[in-house]
Amino acid sequence: MKGIGASPGIAIGKAVVVEKKRPRLTGVTLQSEAEVKREVLRFEQAVTSAVAEVEAVMDTLVAHDGPTEVLEIQIELLQDEQIITDVVEKITSEHVTATDAVMEVIAAAVTTLHNLDDAYLRERAADVEEAGNRILMELDPTLKPSELIVSENTILIGEDITPMDILSVDIAKVIGLVTRTGGKTSHAAIVAKARGIPAVVGCGDALASVRGGDVVIVDGSEGMLVVNPTTEILNEYTAKKKAFTTQASALNALKDIVAVTTDGVRVKLMANISNAADLEASFAFGAEGSGLLRTELLFMGRNTLPTEEEQFEFYKNVALQAGGKPVVVRTLDIGGDKPLPYLHLPAEQNPFLGYRAIRICLDRKDIFITQLRAILRASVFGDLKIMFPMISNVSEIEQAKAILEDVKTALRSASTPYNAAIEVGIMIEIPSAAVMADLLAREVDFFSIGTNDLCQYTLAVDRMNEQVKHLYDPFNPGVLRLIQNVIEQGNKFHHHTGMCGEMAGDVTATLLLLGMGLREFSMSAASIPYVKDLILNTSITAAQEICRTVMAMRSTPEIIQYLQAVTKR
Amino acid sequence: MKGIGASPGIAIGKAVVVEKKRPRLTGVTLQSEAEVKREVLRFEQAVTSAVAEVEAVMDTLVAHDGPTEVLEIQIELLQDEQIITDVVEKITSEHVTATDAVMEVIAAAVTTLHNLDDAYLRERAADVEEAGNRILMELDPTLKPSELIVSENTILIGEDITPMDILSVDIAKVIGLVTRTGGKTSHAAIVAKARGIPAVVGCGDALASVRGGDVVIVDGSEGMLVVNPTTEILNEYTAKKKAFTTQASALNALKDIVAVTTDGVRVKLMANISNAADLEASFAFGAEGSGLLRTELLFMGRNTLPTEEEQFEFYKNVALQAGGKPVVVRTLDIGGDKPLPYLHLPAEQNPFLGYRAIRICLDRKDIFITQLRAILRASVFGDLKIMFPMISNVSEIEQAKAILEDVKTALRSASTPYNAAIEVGIMIEIPSAAVMADLLAREVDFFSIGTNDLCQYTLAVDRMNEQVKHLYDPFNPGVLRLIQNVIEQGNKFHHHTGMCGEMAGDVTATLLLLGMGLREFSMSAASIPYVKDLILNTSITAAQEICRTVMAMRSTPEIIQYLQAVTKR
Repeated sequence: MKGIGASPGIAIGKAVVVEKKRPRLTGVTLQSEAEVKREVLRFEQAVTSAVAEVEAVMDTLVAHDGPTEVLEIQIELLQDEQIITDVVEKITSEHVTATDAVMEVIAAAVTTLHNLDDAYLRERAADVEEAGNRILMELDPTLKPSELIVSENTILIGEDITPMDILSVDIAKVIGLVTRTGGKTSHAAIVAKARGIPAVVGCGDALASVRGGDVVIVDGSEGMLVVNPTTEILNEYTAKKKAFTTQASALNALKDIVAVTTDGVRVKLMANISNAADLEASFAFGAEGSGLLRTELLFMGRNTLPTEEEQFEFYKNVALQAGGKPVVVRTLDIGGDKPLPYLHLPAEQNPFLGYRAIRICLDRKDIFITQLRAILRASVFGDLKIMFPMISNVSEIEQAKAILEDVKTALRSASTPYNAAIEVGIMIEIPSAAVMADLLAREVDFFSIGTNDLCQYTLAVDRMNEQVKHLYDPFNPGVLRLIQNVIEQGNKFHHHTGMCGEMAGDVTATLLLLGMGLREFSMSAASIPYVKDLILNTSITAAQEICRTVMAMRSTPEIIQYLQAVTKR
Repeated sequence: MKGIGASPGIAIGKAVVVEKKRPRLTGVTLQSEAEVKREVLRFEQAVTSAVAEVEAVMDTLVAHDGPTEVLEIQIELLQDEQIITDVVEKITSEHVTATDAVMEVIAAAVTTLHNLDDAYLRERAADVEEAGNRILMELDPTLKPSELIVSENTILIGEDITPMDILSVDIAKVIGLVTRTGGKTSHAAIVAKARGIPAVVGCGDALASVRGGDVVIVDGSEGMLVVNPTTEILNEYTAKKKAFTTQASALNALKDIVAVTTDGVRVKLMANISNAADLEASFAFGAEGSGLLRTELLFMGRNTLPTEEEQFEFYKNVALQAGGKPVVVRTLDIGGDKPLPYLHLPAEQNPFLGYRAIRICLDRKDIFITQLRAILRASVFGDLKIMFPMISNVSEIEQAKAILEDVKTALRSASTPYNAAIEVGIMIEIPSAAVMADLLAREVDFFSIGTNDLCQYTLAVDRMNEQVKHLYDPFNPGVLRLIQNVIEQGNKFHHHTGMCGEMAGDVTATLLLLGMGLREFSMSAASIPYVKDLILNTSITAAQEICRTVMAMRSTPEIIQYLQAVTKR
């Protein structure tokens, strides 16, 4: 059975199937004001218990890669004033039970969100639904997942597996997760990665044939599922599992070794992070700082802009956590596809080609200035650098730098300390910026190549669009030439040029990028050992030869086939 | 008063203000079946008269730049079965008057369209509204614009000026048009260009201050309007007008002169067209064929795909009209932003980065094969070439050419004649294609640079988006470098490399493009004399020097200032 590998490794165990119970309308009409009062109270208590339960999950969950944010959103939704008001209103005016009121209010909210064009908001519909289910379960405990009897070596199988589901079992005994729905960023995937257990998600309807007690092999590296295997296959996977474990501990052993090629060239491997907790977790994988601190989460899931003080505390925490290691702070990179409701951004026909990131910041200087002040003030607590996203021409850099200078002047006048020598760089993620990297290099201290957006624009492909995502291709020769140009120009100007797109963590690209001259890779922390392993076992001379060979090729299949062949050890 | 120059030239005359009368609901309830029948009949007669009136306008209107299509859409909407059924249904079931039924049905249709995300469909709302107004005017002739008393030298001023408005006046006496709303592609702009009279559109509310009888100067070149000018200003504009007329007739005299630089290099100037009528009209401006025949109109405004025969007739007409001159036929370039309802294309988050053009054709081979068969069959009637849009990699060219070969084989087996040596080219409008022009050049006979899309993708800017359109900039050094690379690679492979984006008709860019090595410019026909005039008065050596200077510059303002200075004669 084929699915999506969401957390690598191999697990062999016994299936335990998580059944989801669906809430039903009670259809009861409340007969007295006393009953109405009681239902309102029951609802309010249910919300309180649901919040408490989520907070308990947060405390328990090891927060490696963002699960905390998911749960924070749940708490916010559970406490959403509009939903609470609507439910109470429904109970009191229509005399329906708390269960019915919650179901109807949530259903209406979900429908509204589902009908929106915006993918981000549609995703929120699933969150709202989950928040509703949490309250319904508190109102009617029979809806809670039954205590699952898990023995040692349990493989959990379900529609989707939420952090809550995980809490209802003895997690130490669970060695693998499998779901029918979901993708690489589903809750199940996040939980599995955080726990370090293999997971296969999005298996589809075929999963219905698996019964509790079946022997199941989960191959999270290949996205494979084998049910009731033959002895032969079982032996094969047992061997594979052993090999994986050996490799994993070997990679783990690399943690404290710096990445140096066999001919002595030092390469920096860093982590892409969203907060101080991410940074802390990344040290376990040997990250040497962060090449990308996203600042969007500071601005999302709230009703107003974060104050300078809130931002200052956030950047200061990251700087302190870094303990002197560099952290590249990217200024607000938000736009039409990820709107902040309180900014009232207009709906756009093509949000990826629209009003976002530096374009908003140069327009809404109030937002930009507040963020720059907070970063500068935090810059005395560590090695922070500032990076502007979505730069397409020289003028945008000049404008952004002029504003930064004004902020510095203001801080100086107020005798507020900041790092006067703070480095300023830009994301190279728009084709024009890549093409004229030489002109932009004069304006800044460093580049960071954002391969995801650069690839989307260079190929005119929205990689989220099912109809065309097969055309999204970081190994397209045109994309590779632009990347090479940026690295060469950056090196010519003695910049440190980094890369923080997904390509930086893709081992298929590592040797090519090394050969192009890249010496700073920033990626999801879990990829660092794999990339490091490759670097430790290659010479720059060999990588340059690989680069020359690839750059003479004319099509992607030929490039990928070659790179996979030279990468295999 | 400032507006948008929509048709160049200067007119000085007396204002005549066109008042729009708004239809009102009658509120009458029909009392008998006889009345119902009478209203249905009146409605049907109104539709027939409205269609006849539009057809009369079509016959009268000199169809220079697409007005025919606008009116064809009107006829289709007037005959739209859904609208007719809905109106008749409303009259018979609700016993309302024809006027009320039309107003309500049209209002509902307009609201539905207005709420759509798609800019193209929103535009159709204005068309539906106009169709409704035409029917309402037939039902109630008092709604028709009053006979305007126009004397010699009338300047028509109105909210918007439709082809119908023009018909209600003695058009020979109208020497200028001014509107409050609308842009460069509004009806007023199209009519004015077709008539060759100056027009300023989109003047905004300030226009309300103009009274009938005011002396008005319309400067369609600068987009200026002067009301009741002083003698001094009047003299100034009289001189300007004379200069413009002199220049215009000088340009007209260039029609039959080929474009050759002073040092003897021949340049081909061609027209972008949508049909045979456009091509015919373009000859008046000296077009040497068409560098871009758009085929979208064949597919739009209908309920099913055009048959091979319909397409064959269309291409054959164009080929015959061309009289041996080359015509580059671009295969279907349609997508999420301009959907064909009968294709049931999915809504997209970022249609400009989505499922469109060659991406649809390689997927929906049935559509592609039918079009290629029709083009090939028509290729024996003239010099047609085939051009594939939205190419981003080598593989797409290989696939498209393989399909073309299959179609040729099928035609050969059936002994159907076609031009076996038909040239095959691609649009270069995606950054990856521009970056790897050398790799793509091996696969095709010619390139045509689509500067509009190339610029949008290279800068990640949707130029239709009000919030960011100031960033749309064909003179960005990154964009210019890509264009230069395409021209150089095309010339290296002895291709004829053309350009069919708006830049090809922009005189500010002419010398630069010449200097880069471009020898084929395809543009809106009316721009040909201006570009030709520049070419006739420059040497390639001078243009190359200009190109070198520009390509050493680092920002747009400096580039544009320099080019404007060297272009001014």
